Amino acid sequence: MTTNWPGDRLSIALVHYPVYNKNNEVVATSVTNLDIHDIARAARTYGVRKYFLVTPVEGQRRLVERVTRHWQKGWGSTYNPDRKDALDIISIVDTLQEACKAITAETSRPPRLVVTSAKDLPGKLSYGEMSALLQDTEEQYLLVFGTGWGLTEEVVAAADHALPPLRGRGDYNHLSVRSAVSIILDRLFGR
Amino acid sequence: MTTNWPGDRLSIALVHYPVYNKNNEVVATSVTNLDIHDIARAARTYGVRKYFLVTPVEGQRRLVERVTRHWQKGWGSTYNPDRKDALDIISIVDTLQEACKAITAETSRPPRLVVTSAKDLPGKLSYGEMSALLQDTEEQYLLVFGTGWGLTEEVVAAADHALPPLRGRGDYNHLSVRSAVSIILDRLFGR
Repeated sequence: MTTNWPGDRLSIALVHYPVYNKNNEVVATSVTNLDIHDIARAARTYGVRKYFLVTPVEGQRRLVERVTRHWQKGWGSTYNPDRKDALDIISIVDTLQEACKAITAETSRPPRLVVTSAKDLPGKLSYGEMSALLQDTEEQYLLVFGTGWGLTEEVVAAADHALPPLRGRGDYNHLSVRSAVSIILDRLFGR
Repeated sequence: MTTNWPGDRLSIALVHYPVYNKNNEVVATSVTNLDIHDIARAARTYGVRKYFLVTPVEGQRRLVERVTRHWQKGWGSTYNPDRKDALDIISIVDTLQEACKAITAETSRPPRLVVTSAKDLPGKLSYGEMSALLQDTEEQYLLVFGTGWGLTEEVVAAADHALPPLRGRGDYNHLSVRSAVSIILDRLFGR
């Protein structure tokens, strides 16, 4: 169902592979409990379509399923129902391509990929331009965040758009990915 | 030293006591590792003066000291020097009053207290009004965040100002305190 809320045209993906480590090697990072919770709560607050956790490691996918099940069906669901609401928008997938396929299957529109980075990427949109694109009810977008030391060059090169890095005072911008997702969703949808 | 950067007039405090728990009882919450790191990184990125961790529990203060020492002087300081920069702005104090005293001692100005909440508080400023106040180089502000189920009525009543709750889509606003701090600093200082 498509509504007037622009978040209905945006899904987010947190990529654990392929990303760089500190030494610029391509690795799979571990899913962390707080990446599941904090980002799900931000995604739910700002009303995006879906939050994809991307990892090809089967044990990691099982871990995410166990955590989300606890809050959705186990003891956690009655202790804190707000968590259940947040975790309902999580989907666990092998690859970014799987996330795109799922969006296409559900909305009949292949999503455009928008990458985020702490570095300045070529061809980037402003946050205002991205907000404007989300007004178009005929498109779907997938906003992609990397863990570790960031998304690989191949992922960035394959994207349709890029958003500018978040800037505060000076050049230090070592925000956690949880902070970056929260801030970017607020810039796009906050009131 | 006072510069033109408005963040030089703002410190933040994360309060672990007194706050409410789920049942509206006044409790001391535990300091979490991610609250130390994520919030320090956001505070450093947006260039605020100081990040006060407030807890009267001595064991908790020792824990924070151990974590920050690891990244400042131990193995962590060479593994990831960006973490060191972030953690340098942390100060661990017993009470909110101690944080105010420290600011007064360092800047010769007793700070005005600004509380944040997921609820609508009376007498609140807009984010634009708060930004404007921070342009005044003659004042210092302490922006106060609660853990658990939020700051007690007494803390809220004693504050000079309040900021409005963060709103996304609809009424669901169960952001983590880490997300809320990041978003609010971006609203005040982001470029």
